[in-house]
Formats: sequence, structure tokens, C-alpha cells
Amino acid sequence: MYVAMGPMNDDNGSMEMEQDEVAQLINGGETEEVLGNVDDDEEMAKIQQAIDMITDKYVDEVDESKLVEGAITGMLETLEDPYSVYMDESTAEEFMNSLDSTFEGIGAEVSMTDGRVTIVAPFRDSPAENAGLRPNDKILVIDGEDTDGLSLYDAVLKIRGEKGSTVTLTIERPGVNDPIDLDVVRDEIPIETVYSEIIEEDGKSIGVIELSSFAEKTATEFEEQLKELEDSNIDGLIIDVRGNPGGLLQVVEEIGSLIIPEGEPIVQIEDQEGERMRQLSNLDGKKEYPIVALTDEGSASASEILAGALKEAGGYEVVGTNTFGKGTVQQTLRMVDGSEIKLTLFRWLTSDGNNINEVGVEPTIKVEQPDFYYATPLDFEEPLTYDMSNEHIKNAQIMLAGISEFDPGRTDGYFDEETEEAVRGFQEQEGLEVTGEINEETGTRLQEKVIEAIQGKEYDLQLDRAIEVIVE
Amino acid sequence: MYVAMGPMNDDNGSMEMEQDEVAQLINGGETEEVLGNVDDDEEMAKIQQAIDMITDKYVDEVDESKLVEGAITGMLETLEDPYSVYMDESTAEEFMNSLDSTFEGIGAEVSMTDGRVTIVAPFRDSPAENAGLRPNDKILVIDGEDTDGLSLYDAVLKIRGEKGSTVTLTIERPGVNDPIDLDVVRDEIPIETVYSEIIEEDGKSIGVIELSSFAEKTATEFEEQLKELEDSNIDGLIIDVRGNPGGLLQVVEEIGSLIIPEGEPIVQIEDQEGERMRQLSNLDGKKEYPIVALTDEGSASASEILAGALKEAGGYEVVGTNTFGKGTVQQTLRMVDGSEIKLTLFRWLTSDGNNINEVGVEPTIKVEQPDFYYATPLDFEEPLTYDMSNEHIKNAQIMLAGISEFDPGRTDGYFDEETEEAVRGFQEQEGLEVTGEINEETGTRLQEKVIEAIQGKEYDLQLDRAIEVIVE
Repeated sequence: MYVAMGPMNDDNGSMEMEQDEVAQLINGGETEEVLGNVDDDEEMAKIQQAIDMITDKYVDEVDESKLVEGAITGMLETLEDPYSVYMDESTAEEFMNSLDSTFEGIGAEVSMTDGRVTIVAPFRDSPAENAGLRPNDKILVIDGEDTDGLSLYDAVLKIRGEKGSTVTLTIERPGVNDPIDLDVVRDEIPIETVYSEIIEEDGKSIGVIELSSFAEKTATEFEEQLKELEDSNIDGLIIDVRGNPGGLLQVVEEIGSLIIPEGEPIVQIEDQEGERMRQLSNLDGKKEYPIVALTDEGSASASEILAGALKEAGGYEVVGTNTFGKGTVQQTLRMVDGSEIKLTLFRWLTSDGNNINEVGVEPTIKVEQPDFYYATPLDFEEPLTYDMSNEHIKNAQIMLAGISEFDPGRTDGYFDEETEEAVRGFQEQEGLEVTGEINEETGTRLQEKVIEAIQGKEYDLQLDRAIEVIVE
Repeated sequence: MYVAMGPMNDDNGSMEMEQDEVAQLINGGETEEVLGNVDDDEEMAKIQQAIDMITDKYVDEVDESKLVEGAITGMLETLEDPYSVYMDESTAEEFMNSLDSTFEGIGAEVSMTDGRVTIVAPFRDSPAENAGLRPNDKILVIDGEDTDGLSLYDAVLKIRGEKGSTVTLTIERPGVNDPIDLDVVRDEIPIETVYSEIIEEDGKSIGVIELSSFAEKTATEFEEQLKELEDSNIDGLIIDVRGNPGGLLQVVEEIGSLIIPEGEPIVQIEDQEGERMRQLSNLDGKKEYPIVALTDEGSASASEILAGALKEAGGYEVVGTNTFGKGTVQQTLRMVDGSEIKLTLFRWLTSDGNNINEVGVEPTIKVEQPDFYYATPLDFEEPLTYDMSNEHIKNAQIMLAGISEFDPGRTDGYFDEETEEAVRGFQEQEGLEVTGEINEETGTRLQEKVIEAIQGKEYDLQLDRAIEVIVE
């Protein structure tokens, strides 16, 4: 399941369906009542017996309502579907309230994976991105509180907070040994989900549309901005869904109908019985200019539908890295006591009928960003100096090699003379005290430079390649 | 929960009670029937509704008996007690069978922690220990199969197998970055749980009794071997429970009565209502010689009772490191359909009434083993050579520094000239090709030397300190 710590108001950033869409898919227009169909007394008796044993005999007092919630959570876990989750009454209510009010947070999409709150993608230029959070970071601790046993919703509520306040997240990053502490300053998360610009290259005008999520108004805004670009006679279009965690199914279908060739399937929806429903594009003909999709490992759900459709139904290039791999659609179901189950109801397949769950959409042109995009923020327990060897030095070397003209010569974490020379060069250029050591000041500057470089797109190899494809 | 992959026949190595003991504690002799006492229809209705929603609407077909098992597992998880677990009918049956037959395995105690099968302690001189498994190693993969979602019992059944066959375990070790592959050759696990010897030091005879677990015959054997030692007029006694994962409550009470001063409490048992029952030693007086307990982080459950009693009721020294911290007693309860719940029924407290759960028993004299005891087995994807820097080099340096006369000068993982010199020295001494590189041959020899050193006890700083205490 995804929960947006972002701007969503009436959806939560995952691939969700509107109530009427669901009703239509289930039984052609009428909303079905949830009726009991399990009268297997033996199985309920077994659950009853377990509850009795535990409450009677367990060494400590047992809270029965906790047991019931544990039972539901345990049942959902057997589905092995990270997107099907339980939310108790008070959490469900609190969460709805938090969505109603003006939203202030860190701007990242999270899911629950292996029992830990996990970053799917930080939003573009959000506090989360600026602090260095990355896809697949696991959040272990929020402001000193262990997230173990915390539900996704409870975790999100703790991460959110007033603009300007700071939340400290301790994260585990794949391939990194020690947990990392990151201070994230909360901010108001902008509600705009569509950004566009025109890039001129080799005498050609290339329109770029970035989609940060698929929210209610995203399709309308996309249509307006696409029209503006077309009025400027663009020679090609790049659609950037990197770091876009998804959103509403209907919205991606609408956007697909604006760019996918006439009559081609944008997406296929499959239900419990394996019945498929295809959604076809009602564009008039085919766009005259080439289109390229930009994807990365943070492109999830609706982003993957769009990238898959551009690739398979449009025959367009997809540049970047493999997408996240979320191929299911959820809906929130309310229980008798006000608690909720968010359940995966449908699977979606790409235009050609490929199931991308856990697999993702493979780009037609694979381009990784430079290594420093993936470097871990430095941790300054002590200055890094000559002849030391550790992971922080490795990250500093990758950053120096990537964004400065001072090449440390190696990126394996050993601080040799060449590294020292590179540090001196960087310090001199930046007007810092020239010590040859990576102290807190030098390290902080180095990281600022990395963030600037990423935001300034001067090393955005994926975008560069997409532009090349259109200019060629 | 503990499950012995060891020699246990009618217990499974955890702190368990016999049926009659339990009955006595609960209601003075009569075995209580498990009766229903929850008739809260609302709560059962909620579970029923969740089952209906999931089976009706989930995108895939749902196995209802799996759901019920998930519900029970989920309820037990709310207890946040790693020792309370569910076992389905076939697993329970298969497990009983595997305990009946001659036992062949790897010789290690495991528990389920954070959803992963975790080593509590390898048995002394077992295949597990010889392969380099250590307390708190998490088993991620067994012969290529991910353990995620596997129950503890299913995992144990996969790890066990015919003598001479090999099982490959992929483990995650705290503080180590990448998963480690270990090949463990299964063997018959010896059934003896008591070993004793006499060490002569400074003209004094010191009896040493090692207890590898608290099994049915352990107390009788302990009594016999203690008598032999006493007939040899020992001047002191060392009781070594390092790496001892526990066993039967009754057995540790019997052993306590052989060495804890007369009338002192060996252990206190506390039930759900907080009622405590003290078990007093019926020794005649007090032993005339000093006693020292040896503990480490693999000393769990019954081992901790014994160490705690020696420390608190006997006033004896405890040498080594903090114990594991398991302060509860389980019993297996059978359900209507043959499945079982193993449930924590009681808490035990030390002689002075201290709760050691998750805390362990602190030694009175803290002694760590040399660093090489804790070094990670090397992994030979490529030879380790001059100017490289990584974790494998770090471990090799720790081993060289610990068990050879060739000191690499640093143990931070950077392969400098001094390290190369040390490798050459070691290769020369061992009659290996002198290359200055740690290739597979050199690394393997180095690790053999480490295992020899650990088994030969020549660097056993904890034992040395215990001997000193008695000789002083």
C-alpha cells in the first residue's frame, strides 16, 4: 500500500479507484453489499479456541480488541500483498482528518515492506528529497521512536507535522552497513502535479512534462500544458514520471487518451476471475511528434501504466531505469466498527497484457544516473582523514569524482594521497580552509553541491539521453 | 521460542515445563481443561466480516484455512513475545516424528526474531559452530529458499537432514554489510550434555563442568560428574554455560539444588496474576570450594537461571559476557484440529526476584573473548591484495592479529604494506606459496587456524579469568 505524505486530498497517492469505477467493474453499476459467505463453524471455532487459550493462559494480561486486530492483520499478511492493510478506527479517522486540513509534511511516498515503513519515492524538490531520502530506504526510527510494530498510517501521522518543524528519521539503506540519521525540515507540499517547459537543442524545440503524481486535477492540467506546448510547435515530447508514485486509475486513463495512438489499449484491468477489461485510447489518430518516457525505480503504479502504454501501445522509447513494479489496484472497505481494510481488488496489465507486479516496466534504453546520485549522505562523527578506510570516505570519493574537477582516483573508501589532494582542491575552490581532511564544513559543502547538481540537472544523463533520442 | 536443532528428544531446548509441573502451578495437581470464555459476539463478528471481505473481493483466490492460521499467528504476534508461536497440524506432526528418530542436523539453537529464523547459539563443537555460525545470525535463505514467511518449525525441518549432507545457509550478521553464505555439513549431534575435566593451575585442582543444554538426563549426569570431581578433591569449580540455550525448568532446579547454598532460592516463577513461587535449594549447607559461572550471549533461559542463582543466592562470581535474556517458560497447547500453540505461561525471576527478560544476567567480572572470536568468515570472490580496502580484509586482519605472530598493524580493512608483510610471514610459516595476497588457500588456512584456536582454548580469556578467580 502507498500512503502519500504528499499533497493528496481525496486519494492517497496509490493506484486507487473511485467508488463508481469499482462498482462498474464488479457488477455493472450497482454497489455490492459485503455479505457473509463463510459459515464454516470449524474454522471460526478454531479462532475462538485460540483466543480463549491466549486470554486464559498467557503470562501477561491480554487486550482482546488488540487480539482481533492482530487476527485481521495476520489474515491480510497471508495474502503476501504489501498493499492490503488494516487500519483501526481511530487511525482511519485521524488519517481522514489529516487529509482534510492543509497538508504539511516531508513529501515522500511510503509503503509497508517487510514490516517496515519504506520510501517508494520522495517527491521532486521536496524536503524528503533535499534531505537525501531515496527509494527503498527503510525508516527504522521516527524522532527516537522505533517503527517496529507501528502501522503505516501511524508512522505517516508521526512523520507529518507543522511546516518548519524538523523530524529526525533513522533509515536503513540497502547496501549500507550502519543506520543513517536524516533531519528533514517539514514544509507545505505543493499541490501542483504537472510541470512543463521547453528545451531548445540543435534547433529543435522539445517539450518536457514532469508528472509528480496522478491526482484529481492532473489530467486537466496535463491537457492544458500539452496544448500550450503544441501551440509552440514542439518537435518532440518528453514525459517524465521519475519518482512519481502513482495515483488514480481514472486519471492515468485520461492522460493516456491524450497521447496514446487511437484505438490502442492504455491498460487492461483483471479481476478475481481473470476477466479482463481493456481501456482504449480515444485520441484522434497519432501524435505527429515523437514521445519519450523517462522512468526510474521510483516510478510506480499509474506511472508504470503510462510508461508501459507509451512503450507497447505507442511504440515509443522509454529511457531511464526499471520502474518500481506495482501492478495492483486497491480500494478502502469500511468495517462494522469504523475500522477499515484497504484491499487489492484488481490487477492491471500493460497494453500488451504484461503483468508488471514486482517486475516493473523495463526501459527500452537503459540509462543510470551518475554514481553520486546514489551516494549516501555523509555522517560526521569524526573528520575523515589520510590513511583511514570506511564507507563515509567511499561516499565522499564518489561525490568528489562526480561533481567536482578534483578526482580522488579511487572510490573504495581508502583515503590515500590522491584523495587528500582532491579534497584540498575542492576546499580551495570553495574558499574553505584547506586541510586535506573532510571535516563537517567540507562534507556539508560537498553534499550541498551534490544536491545542487541533482536539482540543476547538469548531470541528468537520463534527460540528456531522452533529448538525444528526439533530436536524432 | 527456542527449537533445538540439537539432540533433544522430549523437549526442544527451550525453557519448558513438564505437563505435571504446569498442572501443579496452575491448580495444584489437576490438569485444567481449556474452556471458552470469550463470548464477545461483536469481536468474532468483526473477524467474520474481515474473512468475508477478503475471500469475496481479493484479487486472487484465497485459501480459508491459511486465513485462519494467519489470524492465529497475527494474534500471537500482538503479544510481542517471540516464544509464543503457532504450528499447523502437519508441521506439528512432522516435527514430533523428527524428534523421535535419530537426530541428525547442524547443532544450533534457533528462535524467530523480527520474522526471521535467528541463531540463539550453536552447540559446542557442532557443525554449526565449525562452519562459523554465531549468536544473532539471521538465516535469510536455506539451500536457495528464502525463509521469509517460513515458520520456525518449517525452517528447522529444512535445515535438518542426513548426516554428511550439506546445507547452505545465507545469513545476515549484525554489523556486516552483505549476506554471508555458509556451507554446513550435517552430522549426528551428540546426546551428551555434560562434559567435565580437571585443570591444574598453581598447584590447585580446578574442576570444570560444561553444560551444553538442560535435557532430561543432564541433572543426573551432572550429579555423577560433580561427585567424581569432588572425590578428586577439587579446590574450586567452574560451571560453563556459554552457548547453552536452556532446556527443562525441572532440570535446572535439580542442578541448582546440588550447588546453591541450603535454603536459598534457585528461581522464582511468576504467573499471570503476579503470584510468585520460590524454588529453594535443598543442598546440605554450602559447598566448601569457590564456584565460578562462565556465561556469554549464547547462555539462555535455564543457563541464565543457574548463572543468576550462583551470582545472587550463592554470592559467586560470574565471568564472561551478558547472557541472552530469555526469562519466560512455555508450554505447547494442542488445538481441536491437531495444530498447536506454544504459549508463554510463566515468567521466571532470579533468586533475588530480578526479571532478566530481554536484559540477561550481567557477569560480575566482564571478560570478552579476543576480537578474532567474533570475526566473520572470509568470502573468496577474489583474492585480497595490496591497496584494496574492504570488510573481508578487515576480518583477515583481525584473525592474523589474533592468532598469529604476524601483526598486520591495522584492522580497519585497508591492505597496506604491513598487512602484506604479515600475510607473507603467515604463508611462510604455514608452508604455503608466499604471495603476500590472501587467496582462497591462505584464507582457508587462516580460518582453520582460527577454529583450532577457539577449540583449543589457548586464547579463552574468559576461562583464564575464571581460573584466576579460583586460584587467587
